Amino acid sequence: MNDVPGRARQTVSMTDDRVSLDACPNLTFAFEILGKRWSALILDLLGSRPARFSEILRAVPGLSDKMLAERLAELMDHGLITRSVEDVSVTYALTGNGRELAPALDAIRRWAVERKVRGNIE
Amino acid sequence: MNDVPGRARQTVSMTDDRVSLDACPNLTFAFEILGKRWSALILDLLGSRPARFSEILRAVPGLSDKMLAERLAELMDHGLITRSVEDVSVTYALTGNGRELAPALDAIRRWAVERKVRGNIE
Repeated sequence: MNDVPGRARQTVSMTDDRVSLDACPNLTFAFEILGKRWSALILDLLGSRPARFSEILRAVPGLSDKMLAERLAELMDHGLITRSVEDVSVTYALTGNGRELAPALDAIRRWAVERKVRGNIE
Repeated sequence: MNDVPGRARQTVSMTDDRVSLDACPNLTFAFEILGKRWSALILDLLGSRPARFSEILRAVPGLSDKMLAERLAELMDHGLITRSVEDVSVTYALTGNGRELAPALDAIRRWAVERKVRGNIE
């Protein structure tokens, strides 16, 4: 951190333009999936056990039939859940890729819990 | 796992209704914030360093002025970022609560990287 002639009186901004700022492509990819309303909640629910359409619908307040059907189709397209039919019963379950999301959802859950606790103290 | 008379021929479903299924309220709370488009990316960007409005705008492809202003206001309301004014320069930075999200965003990033790698192999 030597003084450099000609830079000594330069205003030092709070930001450092030398550190380039770029949106993370991996996080962008992840939130194209998880950023859609209900998707993370549906994946989290199916993390506890496979479930039928009507069970998922009941478990998520505010979620409509139409929206759930749409989200399940998207999550299947992304290879995160599977749909299996047995007699007249249709069951949705996580794939291996879907299950691997659990630690990340747990990390978000921990942050939310911590924030709520702090919120009550502050 | 003894055979129980009267239950022996009962069809065993893939789902187990005895395990109740409920959307996690903590995850619901977290995704009310992170589920909004660009929010997680903005928080992640500011995790690398404080930045000006124009820098964030440049860093996130597809993000409009109007949308960025809206998201920054929401994230301030949630106590996750601060806005500081120095001369004519306005800088946004994470608060403590905002910084604590980093491990969760990193977990999501790891999952995304892993999924991309798998995607290329499968």
